[in-house]
Parts: sequence; C-alpha cells; structure tokens
Amino acid sequence: MKLKCFLVEQWMTDHENDCRYNLTDTCVEPLSISQLEQLTDCSLMDTIASMPLDYGPIVGSDDLRQSILSLYTTGDIDNIAITQGTNNANELVMMTLLKAGDHIISMTPTYQQFYELPAMLGCSYDLVSLDEENGWKADVESFIALINNQTKMIILNSPNNPTGTSFDDEWLKTLIDACRERQIYILIDEIYRGLADKTPSSIADLYEYGIATASLSKLYSVAGLRIGWIKASHQVIDNINQMRNYTIISTGLLSDFLGTHVLKNKELILARSRAIVNQNKDNLKAYLTHEKRLSCVIPEDGTVGFLHYHFDMDSTTLAETLQKETGIFFVPGSCFDKEYHLRIGFTRDPEMTLAGLKRLSQWMDEHHY
Amino acid sequence: MKLKCFLVEQWMTDHENDCRYNLTDTCVEPLSISQLEQLTDCSLMDTIASMPLDYGPIVGSDDLRQSILSLYTTGDIDNIAITQGTNNANELVMMTLLKAGDHIISMTPTYQQFYELPAMLGCSYDLVSLDEENGWKADVESFIALINNQTKMIILNSPNNPTGTSFDDEWLKTLIDACRERQIYILIDEIYRGLADKTPSSIADLYEYGIATASLSKLYSVAGLRIGWIKASHQVIDNINQMRNYTIISTGLLSDFLGTHVLKNKELILARSRAIVNQNKDNLKAYLTHEKRLSCVIPEDGTVGFLHYHFDMDSTTLAETLQKETGIFFVPGSCFDKEYHLRIGFTRDPEMTLAGLKRLSQWMDEHHY
Repeated sequence: MKLKCFLVEQWMTDHENDCRYNLTDTCVEPLSISQLEQLTDCSLMDTIASMPLDYGPIVGSDDLRQSILSLYTTGDIDNIAITQGTNNANELVMMTLLKAGDHIISMTPTYQQFYELPAMLGCSYDLVSLDEENGWKADVESFIALINNQTKMIILNSPNNPTGTSFDDEWLKTLIDACRERQIYILIDEIYRGLADKTPSSIADLYEYGIATASLSKLYSVAGLRIGWIKASHQVIDNINQMRNYTIISTGLLSDFLGTHVLKNKELILARSRAIVNQNKDNLKAYLTHEKRLSCVIPEDGTVGFLHYHFDMDSTTLAETLQKETGIFFVPGSCFDKEYHLRIGFTRDPEMTLAGLKRLSQWMDEHHY
Repeated sequence: MKLKCFLVEQWMTDHENDCRYNLTDTCVEPLSISQLEQLTDCSLMDTIASMPLDYGPIVGSDDLRQSILSLYTTGDIDNIAITQGTNNANELVMMTLLKAGDHIISMTPTYQQFYELPAMLGCSYDLVSLDEENGWKADVESFIALINNQTKMIILNSPNNPTGTSFDDEWLKTLIDACRERQIYILIDEIYRGLADKTPSSIADLYEYGIATASLSKLYSVAGLRIGWIKASHQVIDNINQMRNYTIISTGLLSDFLGTHVLKNKELILARSRAIVNQNKDNLKAYLTHEKRLSCVIPEDGTVGFLHYHFDMDSTTLAETLQKETGIFFVPGSCFDKEYHLRIGFTRDPEMTLAGLKRLSQWMDEHHY
C-alpha cells in the first residue's frame, strides 16, 4: 500500500513525552488498577493474579459484549465485535467492507484515518469542510450532494476530533434517508460520545447500514487496555469477526476482564471524567473572556476542541516553539490541514491545564502578539 | 476486500471451549501472573496495581524492544516494531510492503494467512508442497523456480504450523542468494522457533531484506498479553511504525511491562515450556511404536506436528466425531487443505495428552479401524 504519514499520531508520538503542560491530550487522565478498585469499591487483584494470560474467548466474552450493548438501545451481543481500540475497529470496518474503486465521503478537519486508509485501499474520497463560523457544523445537504454511484460509505466522527462537532438525530436521519436506498454504509467513530447531558443517538441504533465504533480509551481513562468495539448488523459483524482472524485474533483475557469491570461501573467512571472535562471547559470559557488573542467553539460533548489563535504564525512553528520555550504541548492545526489552530484537550488535571493557559498568555505577552 | 474463511482459526474458535482432551493447541499451557511471579521469584502485583492504564510509549518501551533484541544476533532497538501478536505482525508487514499485482510464494500445508491475506490485497501466489515422505521438507529449488518478475515476497513459517518443518541456515542461504539481486523480501513467521537444542538463525539476522515475526504467545505461555514483534531493516520498521498509526496505535503499558518481564526471564520460562513439549513428544513417540493406525513426523523444534491416520474417513468428520464421542479436540487436516491428518499440539499437560491418545486408540478399537 502507498503509505502517507498519519500527522496527528506521529506528532503525538514525537512530542508527548517531553512536556510540562499537556494541553492537547484526548484521553481523560488515565486510571491505574488500584484507582479503579477505589473508585468502584471493589477488589480486583486476586482475580487478576490467578487468571491465565490466555487469548480468552476469541470474539470477546459474553459479559464484555453484554456490557458494551448497554451503551446502545437496540440489538444483541452478536451485533458487537471486539477490537484493539477504535483505530483497529475503523481499520477492520474499512478492510472488510471497502475495495479499490469504491468512493467514500468524509469531512475536514477530522481524524486522518477516515479518508487516508480508504485511499490506501484504492478508494476515492470527497471531504466536506466544517464551518467554524457556524460552530464547526456542516450542512447535511453538502454530504448528500457528493453521493455518486460508487459511494460505498460515509465516514464521520461524532463528536469530532479536533472540532468537537456532534451530529444530532435529525441531521443523521436526513443523511440516512439519502443513503438507505443505495445501501450506503454510514460509519461513525463515536469514541468521544457520552459525556454530554443529552447524547445524540448512535448511528448503529438508527440505521440498518449504520456502523458505530468506540472504545474505552477516551472517556473511560483506560486506553492501555486497548479494548474497542464495533456495533453493526449481524452480517457485518460476522464478516468482521472473520477478518479479525487475519489481523488480531483476540484482545486477551486480562483486558477483557478489566474492560468488563470498567463498563459495569461506567456511571462512576463517567462521573469522574465529566467532572474533569466540564471543569476544564468552564475554565477555558472564563479564560477566553479576557484573552482576545484566542477563541474557541467549546463543544457540549467530547474531550477536545480546536483553539483559534489570531496572530500570524504557522501552527507547526507555534506548537514547536511553545513546547521548547514553555513546555506547553499542543497538536498544531497543520496535522489536520487547518492553519491558525491548535487542538486543545479538556482531559487533564484542571489546575495544570489552567496554569498552562496562563503560561500561554504570558508567552504571547513576551513576544508581543 | 474479498474475504475467505480462515479455516484453522474459525475451527479453534468454534470448538476449543468444549473439550476434555485438548490435543491440538499450539500455545504451551498458559501462565497466570502469580505463576509468573513464582517461576521468576519476583513480585509484580504492586507495580501492576499502580501503573496508569495508558497507551505507554507508542512504538513500545526501549526496555521491551531491548529484551526482544536479545533473541537476535544483529541490530538495535530501531530494528524492532511491536505488534498485537504475530498475526498482526504478519498483517502489518503485508499491508505495508505488498500491493495489488505483486506475486508472493508460500507453501502448503501452512498457516492460511500467508497466502490468503496477500490474495485479499490483490496479489497472486504460488505454493510449494511440503513432502511428508521426506519429513515434510521442501527442496529450496522448488521455491526458486517459482520466482518471477512480479515476485515481491517469499512467506514461510519456521517451524511450520502444522508440520513442524524448520528451514536450516544452509537452505535459507541458498534462498537468500536467489532473492538478493531482485530485492525480494523473505518474511518468516518464527513464532514457534526457540525450543530446540540447536535453533536455526533468524532470517532477520541473515538477510538485509529478511523480516522475522514472532510473539510471546506460543513458547512463552502468555498469548493473552498480545505482545508480538517484527524484526527488519530500519527502513521497513519505520514504514511499519507509520502503518501502526492507522491500525493499532500501541499495545498498552500493562502488556509492555509484563512482556518485558517475561523476556527478561526467558530462560526460566523456556525451560518450563521445553520440559512440557519434550515430554509430550517423547510420549507420542513411545505411543506410536505400538499404534500403527497412526504415524507422525515428530519435529525437533516447535510445538505442533501433523498426525497421519491410516484409515478412510475425511478429517472434518473424524475431528467432529471424536470431539462429540470422546471429548478429544483436534484441528482436522481439512483446515490446512490436507486430508488424513490431524494437527497435534505438544503443549498441554503431558498426562492429559497421553490419556487423550489412549482414548483415541480405544475409540479406533470400538469402531474397528
């Protein structure tokens, strides 16, 4: 395959280990097993110590799939495939359902995998631009207008990385109506979905050709378990489980067990995440009222936003200079093909995050921006 | 992609959880963390409890890659990519280096992924038949004769699943001489390598276009950690680490830590595996001296062999009937496109394995075979 650099992931790998203020991370402050025990008032270590470090049930335990199903309103456990994070979930969907010559529709700015991996598989793509002036929304008609005879899949992220855009039920239903007759799949990476007071429906509960992917990495603070999943029709899940035999086999018994425990206690864990993320959003909102060199559409759901800076410097230089001179770590807009922006995460300790923002203002003062 | 059922993996998934005598497993009897602690005289639980369940270093920790490097004679840690088991390692190599129109050469019987996944990517393939009469060997000239202008990769398994075939240094050097000028990659899945007294060299230590894949799943008894790896040139590893961003991101800090511990104590763990596997091979050899309805080329290395039965019944019916009537679990030769054979594993408790073999003889007696 013809390989293109995955800009945001490579930037994270190259820069994340050497910073004082991580203002860009997408995962809520990670939990340890002993923090999990405390938070859920439960002892796990004896079970963990005595469990064979074996594959476990290859398609995932019934218990894990049942716990995942509780996040949706329709279906049974055979509508769920277990994957190695959402990244692998998206890969498996694309590898299984797309072929050279197919056409897909996605958007920009978004997670590069959505159009680059189909391109590697020989697909063509069109991207709809999200409009910052309109709160990073996009008219559903702009997507529908791009559908052609080769269109096989529409690939979205809701909430979106980096803009936080969510697509509501009405918007989705209009898109579904335009896709149903041609049996066009709608794949939505819903990894950031579930913190808002009113969460939109999952595409997998709305549409028979809808495919939802997600994981425990962002809202559940246990990215290291590498537990992700796909919810789709029985036929799609059957095919994906076949493809898993050529790619990952299983995710292992230990992660299966811990992932199930996390989901069985999801309200406790999401409450912690919600508190951290909401505090960071409130702090940013207050901070921006007196910091006019920056602006941001602060989203209702999800863990990230796209900070706009109003001075003339390319985003790569800005992010690198900031990290070098202040220890502030941002992913630059250039990784999303959108200048004058930095991805901001609402995920880390609110005190540290606020201190980082104040340091940012101080740095702009020093450089007379 | 056009998906074909992965026969052996699907058979395992469908049959492995309901048996009394597992005579076919490829992984040496799995270890728990507390067994690992006992075997390596080391306490792990405090570290495990306090570790953040985070991605960990994205390309794998230096410590893990250094421990893997100790299995080879050349290179540095940037010659190692970390993967989700060997299955994903092979997938990443194929996804990164193969494209539609390329030609690959593999063998039969072997692990179906080696030719089926390239075929899904649009490659053509030729297979060399291993010769049971000649101890499941194959003449290196048979492989060389199949090389054409489109040949991009030769894909082998040494020791081989299911036959146990190993390719020695002299054989490999002849193949390398025929591949070097055309820069043909030789990918060898070496997951079963390392139990014999005299282990052949790794292809990644012999050849600049050699790629070795392996994992902790078979000989190290910790398949559930899903730690695998690729050893290859810096250029290949760089590209594979880019491809990982589109597919798995990382394997997680907990598995990275436990995998490193396993490899740092590899001699203790391999000694346990060697004792189990050698006892099972000795038992099978003794058993076959007075069981003439069966024969087997018992390999020097690896954890599996291919048992030949000398009566007329298709292997799928035989395996299903045995499992139903006696609880004996075998993978039938049909999963490897080779009738009158059953894959036998030397991996499980020797007493149980021998009891299973005796039950097999009794069953053949009852049915007058």
